[in-house]
Amino acid sequence: MGSLDTERATMGWAAKDPSGILSPYTYTLRNTGAEDVYIKVLYCGICHTDIHQIKNDLGMSNYPMVPGHEVVGEVKEVGSEVSNFKVGDKVGVGVLVGCCRNCRPCEADVEQYCNKKIWSYNDVYTDGKPTQGGFAESMVVDQKFVVKIPDGMALEQAAPLLCAGVTVFSPLSHFGLKQSGLRGGILGLGGVGHMGVLIAKAMGHHVTVISSSDKKRVEAMEHLGADQYLVSSDATRMQEAADSLDYIIDTVPANHPLEPYLSLLKLDGKLILTGVINTPMQFLTPMVMLGRKAITGSFIGSMKETKEMLEFCREKGVTSMIEVIKMDYVNKAFERLEKNDVRYRFVVDVAGSKLDP
Amino acid sequence: MGSLDTERATMGWAAKDPSGILSPYTYTLRNTGAEDVYIKVLYCGICHTDIHQIKNDLGMSNYPMVPGHEVVGEVKEVGSEVSNFKVGDKVGVGVLVGCCRNCRPCEADVEQYCNKKIWSYNDVYTDGKPTQGGFAESMVVDQKFVVKIPDGMALEQAAPLLCAGVTVFSPLSHFGLKQSGLRGGILGLGGVGHMGVLIAKAMGHHVTVISSSDKKRVEAMEHLGADQYLVSSDATRMQEAADSLDYIIDTVPANHPLEPYLSLLKLDGKLILTGVINTPMQFLTPMVMLGRKAITGSFIGSMKETKEMLEFCREKGVTSMIEVIKMDYVNKAFERLEKNDVRYRFVVDVAGSKLDP
Repeated sequence: MGSLDTERATMGWAAKDPSGILSPYTYTLRNTGAEDVYIKVLYCGICHTDIHQIKNDLGMSNYPMVPGHEVVGEVKEVGSEVSNFKVGDKVGVGVLVGCCRNCRPCEADVEQYCNKKIWSYNDVYTDGKPTQGGFAESMVVDQKFVVKIPDGMALEQAAPLLCAGVTVFSPLSHFGLKQSGLRGGILGLGGVGHMGVLIAKAMGHHVTVISSSDKKRVEAMEHLGADQYLVSSDATRMQEAADSLDYIIDTVPANHPLEPYLSLLKLDGKLILTGVINTPMQFLTPMVMLGRKAITGSFIGSMKETKEMLEFCREKGVTSMIEVIKMDYVNKAFERLEKNDVRYRFVVDVAGSKLDP
Repeated sequence: MGSLDTERATMGWAAKDPSGILSPYTYTLRNTGAEDVYIKVLYCGICHTDIHQIKNDLGMSNYPMVPGHEVVGEVKEVGSEVSNFKVGDKVGVGVLVGCCRNCRPCEADVEQYCNKKIWSYNDVYTDGKPTQGGFAESMVVDQKFVVKIPDGMALEQAAPLLCAGVTVFSPLSHFGLKQSGLRGGILGLGGVGHMGVLIAKAMGHHVTVISSSDKKRVEAMEHLGADQYLVSSDATRMQEAADSLDYIIDTVPANHPLEPYLSLLKLDGKLILTGVINTPMQFLTPMVMLGRKAITGSFIGSMKETKEMLEFCREKGVTSMIEVIKMDYVNKAFERLEKNDVRYRFVVDVAGSKLDP
């Protein structure tokens, strides 16, 4: 285990500037510490957030930046204090790789709300080095932020569960919305939205997909198994559906009016925002007061919830619907994702790609 | 009991047009039906909503209109099916006097969210006649919407509990925020806000009053017993108080930014709106997502909660702080209320007033 004492070089694909174009980049990984797991990356999903990061849309990007936070890999080495993982295990890594462990959220096992959380990439680790994500040969990750992929789950399909999947599972679990028979709405049918339909259906919910156009009706109803499809501009159908939903998971990552969706909610219904939108959203107070409705939101999910979600998906046979690509297609994939031209998630076959062309 | 068969004349003070000026008005009450309670009005509080109604601010006012929905009176007659009240009982009537009894909210005992609820005034009763409120000699009210005032509670101080009191009690109860030790914020210190401070303190909460100016510091801290006073424009103190509150009851009846208050909330904190505001409110999605906070609201409270609230106030010795006036001062009182010039609620001594000057 001499490698425990030496930094190792690895190769990833990094954005070098706000053009967001990814190209090969060699960097070093920290030594495998006592609590660390050294992982060979097999697959990595592409999330819409990756676009914001590589293009510096939020003004907080540092380059070179290797994106990717829906990582599935194989354990190659573990530190001396790691007992839950062994060499050969198939594991996942998501959006976070660190937290303070002392604050109220950390102590409540909801470390995703820790103010000192460390992101999988475009952040600085406790050793002062930049974190780099999953579009790379390998990663070294603290065992707290590693999960086992359940046996029998297709590894490439597991990748989107680690961000998109837990983003919908966590609020349904936290807000007491897991029981069968509920009526849910999914607003927007991208990577997160499609996982929303699949997971809500697996919970036994009656699921309505709400979209701005009729374009995705067939795929929502036939491919994903939604029960109902509502076009938000169809005033008659929207009126008929008023007061009918227990919750709506709002996955739209751009500004949109909230009133039409608040009116679909029953008494005590919840509108759950999962998309970061950088302009102010609007609503009228009677829309929430006269029905005790809530506009709330949720941010990915905890490691505990990630494990529960993976187990739930294994039990129920939920998998993501993806398009698997090689690394040399990644820049084209980002272009297509920006146009929402993917059903429903790109996953890069990292181990099957030639990273140094 | 011959009066059970005949309509009786009563006198109230009504607005006759959108000037909102109240003046004497004689009208008839329905017969005391089998489920009805005939009440002599003793006291009636003045709520800010009364101003909106008498001035047709919401565009839904019908005249002549006798306002008043914080009514305390004495039972003078009961219908044949009324067993919970007897002649001489001191009772209260609030914002509602009817509901459908069949819908989901009605069946869940939260009839305030029934779509067919009937308001105490400026509405139409099941007999087709206009409802008229508590600035009047007497009212006939279905027993479902009548509550007993607990023995030993000062009747004039009970009046504001029937709207302002239950408006703060209901969300604290519903959202699981009654236990001792919580940290709450009260935004705005009018009729509802002052009840918020008193009730939250009686629950054993640490209460912070948040206001746009320093003007009410002494009364908040010394008269009402708040623990802390925050001026929302004081960036340093607001920053120090970030992430510290379990809930904020927002009683401000005019548009205001929500971000400063959302940032005061802890993980899973709730911003509870109680004021109808007729222009859109704004917020940024990360402010709710990154902390799983909720912007929610609540509308008065159920009859069940009203009874619980009265019992709670009796046990804890909570009373309102009021300025008692006679009916001939009511128009002046509305003027002063519009300028927030009252500590903290006007209550009209109806039975002690000469209604026909």
